[in-house]
Amino acid sequence: MNNPIVIAIDAMGGDDSPNKVIDGINLHSKLSDNVRYKIFGNKDLILPLINKYNLPKNRYELIHTNKFIKGEDTALSAAKKGKETSLWMSIESLKHDEANAVVSAGNTGALFLISKLNLKMIENIDKPALSALWPSRKGMIVVLDLGANIECNSKNLVDFSIMGSALHKALFDNEKPCLALLNIGSEEIKGNAMIKDTYQKLNDKKYSLFNFNGYIEGNNIMDGNVDVIVADGFTGNIALKTAEGTSNFIISELKKALSSSIIGKLSSIINFKNLKKFKSKLDPRLYNGAILLGLDKPVIKSHGSTDAVGFANSLKVCEKTIRGRLIDQIKQNIN
Amino acid sequence: MNNPIVIAIDAMGGDDSPNKVIDGINLHSKLSDNVRYKIFGNKDLILPLINKYNLPKNRYELIHTNKFIKGEDTALSAAKKGKETSLWMSIESLKHDEANAVVSAGNTGALFLISKLNLKMIENIDKPALSALWPSRKGMIVVLDLGANIECNSKNLVDFSIMGSALHKALFDNEKPCLALLNIGSEEIKGNAMIKDTYQKLNDKKYSLFNFNGYIEGNNIMDGNVDVIVADGFTGNIALKTAEGTSNFIISELKKALSSSIIGKLSSIINFKNLKKFKSKLDPRLYNGAILLGLDKPVIKSHGSTDAVGFANSLKVCEKTIRGRLIDQIKQNIN
Repeated sequence: MNNPIVIAIDAMGGDDSPNKVIDGINLHSKLSDNVRYKIFGNKDLILPLINKYNLPKNRYELIHTNKFIKGEDTALSAAKKGKETSLWMSIESLKHDEANAVVSAGNTGALFLISKLNLKMIENIDKPALSALWPSRKGMIVVLDLGANIECNSKNLVDFSIMGSALHKALFDNEKPCLALLNIGSEEIKGNAMIKDTYQKLNDKKYSLFNFNGYIEGNNIMDGNVDVIVADGFTGNIALKTAEGTSNFIISELKKALSSSIIGKLSSIINFKNLKKFKSKLDPRLYNGAILLGLDKPVIKSHGSTDAVGFANSLKVCEKTIRGRLIDQIKQNIN
Repeated sequence: MNNPIVIAIDAMGGDDSPNKVIDGINLHSKLSDNVRYKIFGNKDLILPLINKYNLPKNRYELIHTNKFIKGEDTALSAAKKGKETSLWMSIESLKHDEANAVVSAGNTGALFLISKLNLKMIENIDKPALSALWPSRKGMIVVLDLGANIECNSKNLVDFSIMGSALHKALFDNEKPCLALLNIGSEEIKGNAMIKDTYQKLNDKKYSLFNFNGYIEGNNIMDGNVDVIVADGFTGNIALKTAEGTSNFIISELKKALSSSIIGKLSSIINFKNLKKFKSKLDPRLYNGAILLGLDKPVIKSHGSTDAVGFANSLKVCEKTIRGRLIDQIKQNIN
C-alpha cells in the first residue's frame, strides 16, 4: 500500500467555498484511501459541512481561522493580511513539512506570492511557471507557462521543458514525454531569437527526461502528438485563453442551433447520451488543477469557479504530483 | 451605379486551381454586375473552364503565361522565377493601375515578397501587416497582425490600429469601429513594455477613425464586443492558429459523438437543418480573404485550400476594399 499523504487545503477561496471544497474532499476521499486532508478555514462554516458530507474523523484535521483572502484582493494586499489567513496557514503547513502539497481555489496572485514568500525555489531554476492540463485527441497534455512570466529567456524555457516533462511523467506515468516549443511555424528558421536559441539548446543536449520534437503551431496543440508544450508566459496565456474563448463560442452556437426549433430540441433529447459523451470529453472539471512549478513543494491552483467535482480533480492532481515524485524528478533533471 | 472596378487574379495558385478560381469568378460575377476580372494563367487550362462556366466575354480578360509559382517554392525562389509568372504579372498590372486590387490563392510568402517588390508602402507606415476576418457572436471582426511581423514596436501597433479600423470600416460600412489590444489581462498595468506603450499612445491621442477600448484577453476575442483586435505578428499568429485548432478539435469530437451510435446518426439526420445552420455560421469560406495592409494598393490572399465559394468570397473582399476606399481611409488617418 502507498504511504499516507497529507494535502493542505485552503477551504475559503473561490466561488461557493467552503461548500464545494468540503464536498470535493468528500468525493476524493472515497476514491483515495490513503490521503489525509488538513483543512484551513472558518470552523463555524466548515464543521456543519463536514457533518453533512459525513467525512470520517480519521481522514481530516480542521485548523480554524476566520481570516481569509478575497478574490478582489491584490496579491500584495493579500500578503499584507498576514499569517493568519487560511491561505497563508495552509502554505505554511507545507513549508513546515506538515503536508505534502497545497491546493486553493482562491486568488491566483495571492497563492503565487505567498507561496514564493514561504517556499524555496528548486536550485538552478530562476523562474516558477504555471502549467495546466489540456484535452487533446489522444489524452491530456501539459502546457506551460500560462502567464507567470511575461518575459522569458531561453534558459527559462529549457527549465520549463524539464518541469513540464516531469509533471507529465508524474501525472500520467509517462516514461519519456514528447515535447515541443509553441511557435508560428514548424521550420527551424521560424520565430524570434529567443525561441530559436531555446530550440538549439533543447536540440543539442539530449535530455533523458523527454524527447524533443521541435516546434508546434497553435492549430496542432490539440492533436495530441506531443505531451508537453512550452511557451513564454505571454504566448501561453494568449493560447490558453483563445482556446477557452473559441470553445465557449462554438458550444454556445451549437446550443443555439439545437434549441432554435422543436425538431432541434427533440432530437437533442433523443441524442442526449451522445451529446453528454461529447460534453464530458470537453468538461473543464476533468482537467481542473493548474500547477505552479519551480518551488520545492507542489502548489496547486483549482479554478475559482469550478464545483465539487472539479475541486476533487484538483485533489487528484495533488495526490499524483506527490505519488509521482514530481519535485524529485525535477531536481534530478535540472542540472 | 458604382464605377466599374477591375480585379487582377492569379489563377494558378492554391489547390485545385485554376478550376476553383474560374468557378469562384463565375459565382462572384453573378452577384456583382460592375466588376471585371483580369485573369493571369495558362490559357490551355483556363479557356475550357471559362467556356464550362459560361463566363460572359465582356466580364473578363485572359492574359496567358505558362510560368507559375508552386506552393513549396520559398518566397525568394518564387521571386527569382521572374516577371513571367502569373503571380508577378497580376501584381504588376496593379502596379501599372490596370487593376484596382489583386488576389491569389497561392504561396503566401511569394505574394507578400513580390507585392513588396512591386508596390509602394503607404507613407509613414514602416511595416505591412496581415489581417483577416474572424466570426464572433455579433458579426465579423478584423484581427491583425497575423504573422507578417514577428517583432513589433508600439508605433507599428498604432499603425496596425489605423489600418485595421479602416479595413473594418471599408468592409462593413462601420462608421467608427471599436478597437482593443490583445493582452494577457484587462487592467492597464498588465502586459509587456511594448504593449503598455501602445496603450498609452492609443489612449492619449483621440483618433477619429476608431474608439479605443483598452485591452482584450484571448477568451473574449469572439464575444464580438470590439470590431478590431491588434497584436504583434507572433501573438496574433498564435491566437489565430490556436482558435483554428480548438475549433477543429471540438467539431471532430462532436462528429465522433454523433456518429457513434444509430440513435446518434438518426438524430443528426433529423436535426440536419439545425446542424447545417450551426456549421454555416462557422464556415471558414465565409471569412476567406486575408488582407495585406500597408501597401498603397489592396493585396488579398485567399486560403489555398478553399473552394470556389471561398474564392468568390475573397473576390467580395477585394471589391469591398475598393468600393470602401480602404487605401484612402488609411492615408487620411495615418499622420
